[in-house]
Amino acid sequence: MSTAGQVIRCKAAVAWEAGKPLVIEEVDVAPPQQHEVRLKILYTSLCHTDVYFWEAKGQTPLFPRIFGHEAGGIVESVGEGVTDLQPGDHVLPVFTGECQQCRHCKSAESNMCDLLRINTDRGVMISDGQTRFSKDGKPIYHFVGTSTFSEYTVAHSGCVTKIDPQAPLDKVCVLSCGISTGLGATLNVAKPTRGSTVAIFGLGAVGLAAAEGARISGASRIIGIDLNPSRFDAAKNFGVTECVNPKDYDKPVQEVIAEMTDGGVDRSVECTGHVNAMISAFECVHDGWGVAVLVGVPNKDDAFKTNPMNLLNERTLKGTFFGNYKPKTDLPSVVGMYMNKELELEKFITHQVPFTEINKAFDLMLKGESLRCMITMGH
Amino acid sequence: MSTAGQVIRCKAAVAWEAGKPLVIEEVDVAPPQQHEVRLKILYTSLCHTDVYFWEAKGQTPLFPRIFGHEAGGIVESVGEGVTDLQPGDHVLPVFTGECQQCRHCKSAESNMCDLLRINTDRGVMISDGQTRFSKDGKPIYHFVGTSTFSEYTVAHSGCVTKIDPQAPLDKVCVLSCGISTGLGATLNVAKPTRGSTVAIFGLGAVGLAAAEGARISGASRIIGIDLNPSRFDAAKNFGVTECVNPKDYDKPVQEVIAEMTDGGVDRSVECTGHVNAMISAFECVHDGWGVAVLVGVPNKDDAFKTNPMNLLNERTLKGTFFGNYKPKTDLPSVVGMYMNKELELEKFITHQVPFTEINKAFDLMLKGESLRCMITMGH
Ligand SMILES: NC(=O)c1ccc[n+]([C@@H]2O[C@H](COP(=O)([O-])OP(=O)(O)OC[C@H]3O[C@@H](n4cnc5c(N)ncnc54)[C@H](O)[C@@H]3O)[C@@H](O)[C@H]2O)c1
Ligand SMILES: NC(=O)c1ccc[n+]([C@@H]2O[C@H](COP(=O)([O-])OP(=O)(O)OC[C@H]3O[C@@H](n4cnc5c(N)ncnc54)[C@H](O)[C@@H]3O)[C@@H](O)[C@H]2O)c1
Ligand SMILES: [Zn+2]
Ligand SMILES: [Zn+2]
Ligand SMILES: [Zn+2]
Ligand SMILES: [Zn+2]
Repeated sequence: MSTAGQVIRCKAAVAWEAGKPLVIEEVDVAPPQQHEVRLKILYTSLCHTDVYFWEAKGQTPLFPRIFGHEAGGIVESVGEGVTDLQPGDHVLPVFTGECQQCRHCKSAESNMCDLLRINTDRGVMISDGQTRFSKDGKPIYHFVGTSTFSEYTVAHSGCVTKIDPQAPLDKVCVLSCGISTGLGATLNVAKPTRGSTVAIFGLGAVGLAAAEGARISGASRIIGIDLNPSRFDAAKNFGVTECVNPKDYDKPVQEVIAEMTDGGVDRSVECTGHVNAMISAFECVHDGWGVAVLVGVPNKDDAFKTNPMNLLNERTLKGTFFGNYKPKTDLPSVVGMYMNKELELEKFITHQVPFTEINKAFDLMLKGESLRCMITMGH
Repeated sequence: MSTAGQVIRCKAAVAWEAGKPLVIEEVDVAPPQQHEVRLKILYTSLCHTDVYFWEAKGQTPLFPRIFGHEAGGIVESVGEGVTDLQPGDHVLPVFTGECQQCRHCKSAESNMCDLLRINTDRGVMISDGQTRFSKDGKPIYHFVGTSTFSEYTVAHSGCVTKIDPQAPLDKVCVLSCGISTGLGATLNVAKPTRGSTVAIFGLGAVGLAAAEGARISGASRIIGIDLNPSRFDAAKNFGVTECVNPKDYDKPVQEVIAEMTDGGVDRSVECTGHVNAMISAFECVHDGWGVAVLVGVPNKDDAFKTNPMNLLNERTLKGTFFGNYKPKTDLPSVVGMYMNKELELEKFITHQVPFTEINKAFDLMLKGESLRCMITMGH
């Protein structure tokens, strides 16, 4: 019997309060409205951004809320006006979207859609300012338009990417956020040429995906920089050829790297979110042609500071959002890279838990033990 | 009778002391050594950098010295090992060079030659650490390897560009420095596409050349920003469509520009040398695709400062040196643009004086009355 048009009652992991373990609850998921789709989530993984907003240390807390934004699922039903998706499609929901109408969507260079750009403060749907989740008639808020810690969720169709139905959702699910971000930062923005030298600051999942991008590009040296040396062993599996811990030196790490590379690396990608690493990542690129790309999300009042001569000496500084991928237009080809075995995803997935043990995924991430923990919904 | 191999006695404008009027003297110019050429200068123009080092307020003073680095001339004789230039060639001497051997010269992206990159502190020739200028046996120092305020000068052959002998030297002479710098900043680095919006900060000769580049690129709006409104009239001749004086507003000029352009310009080029203008030039470009290019030389301890989110929102920040032109490889084609009437140079040349009145050129520049003052050597 079709569930289309009906409220679906299903299990969801609800965050009732900041920093408190999620609780698996029976919730009601309303049908999708205009330009929305309802998805059955099969797999979801945990990203730092979920943890960050669940802890709600820096932001206005918004609870109860259903987190989750890296996931793979199947379209259950579509709302009015949705023409590019239909029930049964295999999809990745994404925290940012593509309206395909605005100046950003029409620009070949930008993926920062005016309508569907990430908004971490919004807990409701764009169309009517309401939530689609409720329990006992009380609303539960959404998170970045995805809320994938639920067996069913509702998303704007511009935030849902149709992918190859052959692609295993328990693997390509990680392409919804961090892995594509790091990969795209290298492949789409830093664009190292074959044989070049690349520095990666921060060897979490995002940085390792950036390193994977450098490996795919044929970089000859990939220098990984992290303050936490426990990251160095795993990094070798992602193409990192040398590791540097800034704590081992009594001079700025940009000078260490310049000495290792006869004046600086050709490209650097910063994946830490710390402003000092951003400055080092910029200042360690070679004059004349070096390009530095910032990925990490900084603290609110951080200031990036450098001597303008570092720029006049023909260095380039850029930043990227979601690796400059347009979610609907570009993600299917990243899935294709995985299917063609150009890109490995298995090595990012270090842990697995059933949905009922989702809080374990939080523990693993908080302890820094996991890259990605795959959460299997009951189905 | 050939002068090759002989010392040439000729007139030069010698700066004996910081900030004191130049004195036309009879000086001796030694023959060119290995990889050097001796040039007869026919025309030279004055640039801020000459004035700046003549005033010697920020730097270690080096006197007596012969300034001058924008010029057109003819090769008189060549030293050992010079194969690409011969007596009679029409040339532009340039303050930066191309050894054609180093990583920079071999890179398609950089023009910052390791060997011949500008060095404002050096007053001698690279090969032997000596000067080629003297008076009564006492050395007179060189300036940026060009010292064109002399009827004859000696330069490294890597700093001398052979050009079309049909090109009028009293016009293309200004391509040796400022005009190429501004033009190249737009054409080679900012690269606005047809129909795009461009902001130019600073409407001196460099900024106006950057505006000329935007006009050539087919920009639909060229917004000129200067603190000195007396620059605005002339700017209209260089394609500037609107002028903004930051002093007319009580909010940062980047906000004014964002309002004028629905979120920011597509490209900006900073040609002031003031760090606040650099920051405004960066922050006034549109997120998603905006590119800002810094050209102005900052004060020594200036820090460029911005919130990293301005970068993460997909803005690009670059700097350029000499408009990214490789002097020997690329300048002939810029001369070609003038010859094909794609580029106008006459409008930059606002004044003319004979060599004997060179100090007038300094006065005009110090009063801000001239863009370029053409100085005609006696010949
Ligand atoms: N721009 C986007 O679209 C986007 C998307 C996802 C994540 N991110 C950001 O990417 C960053 C990395 O994410 P992650 O999940 O890999 O995080 P992570 O915490 O797993 O990894 C960050 C690593 O950086 C290291 N580090 C911290 N400060 C450092 C310093 N000063 N020098 C060198 N190393 C340092 C840490 O030890 C850690 O290993 C975060 O800031 C995250 O917010 C951005
Ligand atoms: N990178 C290079 O290769 C290169 C070569 C030549 C010149 N330059 C530099 O380019 C810059 C411009 O040279 P120029 O000869 O055109 O100088 P200029 O002094 O004639 O013009 C600079 C203009 O900027 C304006 N200005 C100053 N501060 C400003 C501010 N905060 N906002 C807006 N306008 C401001 C001034 O009023 C002036 O009109 C200088 O810094 C010079 O050193 C660089
Ligand atoms: Zn859009
Ligand atoms: Zn994420
Ligand atoms: Zn060189
Ligand atoms: Zn100059």
